[in-house]
Amino acid sequence: MSSLYVALVHYPVLNRRGETIASAITNLDLHDLARLACTYGLPVCYIVTPLKDQQRLAGELIGHWCEGVGKTLHPDRAAALERLRVVESIAARADIEHCTGIKPKLWATTAKPVGSNQLSHSAAQRQLMESVVPHLLLLGTGWGLAPSVLDVVDAVLEPISGFDGYNHLSVRSAASILIDRLLYRGRE
Amino acid sequence: MSSLYVALVHYPVLNRRGETIASAITNLDLHDLARLACTYGLPVCYIVTPLKDQQRLAGELIGHWCEGVGKTLHPDRAAALERLRVVESIAARADIEHCTGIKPKLWATTAKPVGSNQLSHSAAQRQLMESVVPHLLLLGTGWGLAPSVLDVVDAVLEPISGFDGYNHLSVRSAASILIDRLLYRGRE
Repeated sequence: MSSLYVALVHYPVLNRRGETIASAITNLDLHDLARLACTYGLPVCYIVTPLKDQQRLAGELIGHWCEGVGKTLHPDRAAALERLRVVESIAARADIEHCTGIKPKLWATTAKPVGSNQLSHSAAQRQLMESVVPHLLLLGTGWGLAPSVLDVVDAVLEPISGFDGYNHLSVRSAASILIDRLLYRGRE
Repeated sequence: MSSLYVALVHYPVLNRRGETIASAITNLDLHDLARLACTYGLPVCYIVTPLKDQQRLAGELIGHWCEGVGKTLHPDRAAALERLRVVESIAARADIEHCTGIKPKLWATTAKPVGSNQLSHSAAQRQLMESVVPHLLLLGTGWGLAPSVLDVVDAVLEPISGFDGYNHLSVRSAASILIDRLLYRGRE
């Protein structure tokens, strides 16, 4: 198991007008992130939403695949979706501390460079390799994590740069690329 | 622009019983792949389906974002979806030859290792860096590309290995990770 945890954050995030909102859960996000977590050995992928109806929706979806008809038809998917845990807020870090006995570091992600507190992917990879401290990687849905989140984390990972200025990736793509860059050891 | 092209293949692919089928188009696949292609400077992402109603559906979706209301609301998305081209079959390579004057190499992808003709990601990255020949990367939807495709390609890229045997990634995640491994130069 890796010491990297991931959280898909639906609040507080920005909408396209830059306002702080709670975004709606996207079914495919949950599947893609769970399968990614399972492939890379991440112990838990947190689904962060304070909205009760959204928590219920996520719970039903996970139940369908982990206990219901979905598990019989598609056991591989159950193995992945069992990694999902629905939580109220990014205070999910308390859950990691409870399970590991170590207070985790918090890393935020963003598509735009930040002035300070930015960590390169290679430095982040080294930090994961050299330390036993768990790290929680926060991924924003909508138009990204609200500034209030960036203010409280230990570091903000550098953005995935585009080749020609454009880097508007889906959260599913960005999560896949980042987790591979942080954990894949086969690089030359 | 990169010399790498990508094709999201809906036929011929396998279903979960190992039968060859034409899979249905998934809206989010088109968005995610287009945004990925735009971020990494891929000239075209082909959407391969021989089904006329599916071609029409993909065409309407692209039209909405590239010419309709979607473009006004969300111009970044138009810039990405303009890279999509709906084609009948993986003979899409003829389109690349027509545009570049060079016959492209075909690479397939799979989640399971193949006996021969397998190319590592680092060797594939070197090949792209050292050659002007265009390459078309074929990504299978459903349960992956049919064996008839693997038989006619120039090489099959090694699978993305899981850390503990599990590597059931979505095509959106696999495409993101592969394209990053093939084109990102910042590795250590």
